Amino acid sequence: MNPLDELALILGDGLVTDRDIMEGYRRDQALWAPGGWPIAVARPASTAQVQALAQWATRHRTALVPRGAGTGVAGGATATDGCVVVSFERMNRILAIDEAAMLAVVQPGVLNGELKAAAHERGLWYPPDPSSYAVSTLGGNVATNAGGLCCVKYGVTSDYVLGLEAVLADGTVLRTGGRSRKDVAGYDLTRLLVGSEGTLALITEITLRLRRRPPRATTLVATFTSLEASGRAVAAIVRSVDASMLEIMDRTAIRAVERFRPLGLDTEAAAMLIAQSDAPGSAELSCMQAACEAAGGTVIATTEDESEGQMMLTARRLALTAVEQLGTVLVDDVAVPLPQLPEMLRRVDAIAAATQTTIATVAHAGDGNLHPLVVFDGKDAAAEARAVAAFNEVMAQALGLGGTITGEHGVGTLKRGLLTRQLGAASLALHRRIKHAFDPGGILNPGKVIDS
Amino acid sequence: MNPLDELALILGDGLVTDRDIMEGYRRDQALWAPGGWPIAVARPASTAQVQALAQWATRHRTALVPRGAGTGVAGGATATDGCVVVSFERMNRILAIDEAAMLAVVQPGVLNGELKAAAHERGLWYPPDPSSYAVSTLGGNVATNAGGLCCVKYGVTSDYVLGLEAVLADGTVLRTGGRSRKDVAGYDLTRLLVGSEGTLALITEITLRLRRRPPRATTLVATFTSLEASGRAVAAIVRSVDASMLEIMDRTAIRAVERFRPLGLDTEAAAMLIAQSDAPGSAELSCMQAACEAAGGTVIATTEDESEGQMMLTARRLALTAVEQLGTVLVDDVAVPLPQLPEMLRRVDAIAAATQTTIATVAHAGDGNLHPLVVFDGKDAAAEARAVAAFNEVMAQALGLGGTITGEHGVGTLKRGLLTRQLGAASLALHRRIKHAFDPGGILNPGKVIDS
Ligand SMILES: Cc1cc2nc3c(=O)[nH]c(=O)nc-3n(C[C@H](O)[C@H](O)[C@H](O)COP(=O)(O)OP(=O)(O)OC[C@H]3O[C@@H](n4cnc5c(N)ncnc54)[C@H](O)[C@@H]3O)c2cc1C
Ligand SMILES: Cc1cc2nc3c(=O)[nH]c(=O)nc-3n(C[C@H](O)[C@H](O)[C@H](O)COP(=O)(O)OP(=O)(O)OC[C@H]3O[C@@H](n4cnc5c(N)ncnc54)[C@H](O)[C@@H]3O)c2cc1C
Repeated sequence: MNPLDELALILGDGLVTDRDIMEGYRRDQALWAPGGWPIAVARPASTAQVQALAQWATRHRTALVPRGAGTGVAGGATATDGCVVVSFERMNRILAIDEAAMLAVVQPGVLNGELKAAAHERGLWYPPDPSSYAVSTLGGNVATNAGGLCCVKYGVTSDYVLGLEAVLADGTVLRTGGRSRKDVAGYDLTRLLVGSEGTLALITEITLRLRRRPPRATTLVATFTSLEASGRAVAAIVRSVDASMLEIMDRTAIRAVERFRPLGLDTEAAAMLIAQSDAPGSAELSCMQAACEAAGGTVIATTEDESEGQMMLTARRLALTAVEQLGTVLVDDVAVPLPQLPEMLRRVDAIAAATQTTIATVAHAGDGNLHPLVVFDGKDAAAEARAVAAFNEVMAQALGLGGTITGEHGVGTLKRGLLTRQLGAASLALHRRIKHAFDPGGILNPGKVIDS
Repeated sequence: MNPLDELALILGDGLVTDRDIMEGYRRDQALWAPGGWPIAVARPASTAQVQALAQWATRHRTALVPRGAGTGVAGGATATDGCVVVSFERMNRILAIDEAAMLAVVQPGVLNGELKAAAHERGLWYPPDPSSYAVSTLGGNVATNAGGLCCVKYGVTSDYVLGLEAVLADGTVLRTGGRSRKDVAGYDLTRLLVGSEGTLALITEITLRLRRRPPRATTLVATFTSLEASGRAVAAIVRSVDASMLEIMDRTAIRAVERFRPLGLDTEAAAMLIAQSDAPGSAELSCMQAACEAAGGTVIATTEDESEGQMMLTARRLALTAVEQLGTVLVDDVAVPLPQLPEMLRRVDAIAAATQTTIATVAHAGDGNLHPLVVFDGKDAAAEARAVAAFNEVMAQALGLGGTITGEHGVGTLKRGLLTRQLGAASLALHRRIKHAFDPGGILNPGKVIDS
């Protein structure tokens, strides 16, 4: 039997070979990562189908490219020629919300926002909040170890994954972790799979810890006339309170937003800081206010009102969309040790100048995680080359400051080149041996993260 | 040259072959795990020495058994015949405390309590607090992913490990992670090494995240006439506040303490709950109090005074020592999903009855992590056999409730048998392949965690 006919027997109408439909599965949001042509898109509806699919792929030595919602920005879900894209869109059920154990069991295709809403209804909270939460899947969030705005106080995706069900390349169904909050039995395979970007296993079920809903947050916005000053404020805040959000926008980002939607922002400010506290009482807010002022900043607004607070976040939320009005955007993602944040912001400015490229930066400042948004004219090849150079130089400078080439978006295809530089040969060799331990045939997402 | 002479060239006076001295390195605190005779104890003073030692061991196919302070209770540091025990006692320096980045860099032989003290001096805090913190090493804590009392709010050791330096069996020096708070570049090798109990690599340097010192804690003690009631109180507290400590002692533990040191405890109570809150204000304390009363408990004391609070913890702190007065103790360590806590406590009682063995239980209740302390007469072989049966049955029952055979102590040699039952064949096979990826010759801590 023809391999695709075999696959049709496994997947039924979950098999797609129509090129028009497949076109939508060829790449993620790293639009400049060239997508190949899959021979098919598989939309399995159950773990058993994923298992049969993996066995099929191993038999036919066909690459499988796992895909959630395709909102990734590192090219992790990019199709390669001749692969089968595995979309988890049909495995989209919340299997359980256990209120007493404070956990949820979900299929990988559930959207982050869907779980948030379902948890909220039961008085619970799923904290991880990538800005893409309304449209990205929990499978994708787990595979990339997604972060977001709340990480500074509440951690990243891996802090919430209690257990996984995953299918290995040969079709073996693996279960890791479980429903206990503490568990040290054996190696931490759960954490190894989190962030593995589809290269080690196909994640088919996720057990996620939930929290109580946090109390209302109070919000503060401050502006600074220098990047150093904003960095000093961040450092002081981190040392004195547990801010539940601590974001920075640089001047280029502020101006992009103000041009896109006039909000009366101070377009002369070097940086704007947006912070929240959800601790009871107003002591943390006062403390953050004092820290901003002591650093030479101007506190332009504070509120204990939640909806007013949401309004103050508007500028931050609009940043990417606003910057996208200026041209094509490469979203970079680096992290540095906290004290290096101001220096990194300065270096980004220097890179923009040196490459004659516009770079607007938003940062999860409390975590030292920056997103320099590199803007270029998509129709100008020379501009694109300069933008790519800037994108890479941002990573190089982060490494120079003891940081990482990716804080939360992943390596995918775009950052593979610099991974060796960050990790070194010994670590990379070990990565390859671990990859081999999971996927000796190199079936799963080949060419992503590492060359296998 | 004789292999031991070679080793002497590498280690100088860091090599010990005197049997009287070696006697102290043959086993950890799992006293009933039989310890073999090492051919030598190596006390390397630097990563370079560890590297040369690993190369030597690979060349001579000699097993290396890493050892911190030997306070482990799973037999993880137990010597095997013909091995070299690698003690990190000379690698005991705090290399850096970076106040701005809020992190510390330490050698593995630094005691947990030494780092706590050094951090405290700078206004910082290293939270993980195994009860052994004054005497156990950070290397051991990392290798076992040690927990403690503060986990319920502040997490376990792995939540604080930002990066590691480790030496592989072949002498390769590996660096994982770094100084950034967020980092998703490549597989999470840091988390894979944490909890690997010396079977994957020799940890030679640890970068640990620090926190601000928490505010003062308020303390509450309550008693209950049934285990169910105490379980209901725990569930209600977890759902309503972020308790910074949430411990339970059962009647047998209460009585052992009261016999050892009369504190006026209620020896008729089925369970005693000791909880703390370090949130500002007294709202959490009131909430915990209400939860205990609603569950049918009697709040016997609350205090906002720290030293009074410490006094109230006395009973909990004395529990192990008190129980040890009753006979030889096997310290078990299981965890179950939160709602199963009361049922697990009941089953432990049933096991005690069925095996005619005394079992006193203390529990990190807020995490569902129980330590049934199995007491027996060390001179009575039949009693020992019953105790071992009880020890194993506790794990079997935890598994039956969807839990784990070890919440924080590790697998070592004592729990290896039940690991397969918990993880299943697929996971265990993968464990072996991962072990092979790190240590193809099976040099590092052979026979621990898994049979390699
Ligand atoms: C506007 C916008 C804002 C964003 N904001 C953030 C942010 O704040 N923080 C952040 O961290 N990221 C952010 N991202 C990036 C992206 O949304 C996240 O990486 C997200 O986790 C990807 O989820 P997805 O479902 O779209 O996965 P995809 O993009 O489809 O896939 C991502 C990776 O996961 C793998 N994968 C997906 N599902 C599975 C599975 N079931 N099993 C195994 N592997 C799988 C894929 O192979 C790929 O390598 C943003 C993206 C956009 C476009
Ligand atoms: C009274 C008492 C109370 C305790 N309370 C707790 C508690 O509350 N919570 C808890 O989690 N544990 C507790 N423990 C268990 C024990 O203290 C912990 O497991 C601790 O982390 C062990 O540290 P150590 O330095 O003694 O390591 P060891 O016992 O020497 O070794 C433990 C394991 O780590 C490996 N290892 C040690 N150093 C290294 C290294 N540098 N590189 C690689 N592998 C290494 C060893 O091979 C072994 O497998 C307690 C023990 C006692 C005796």
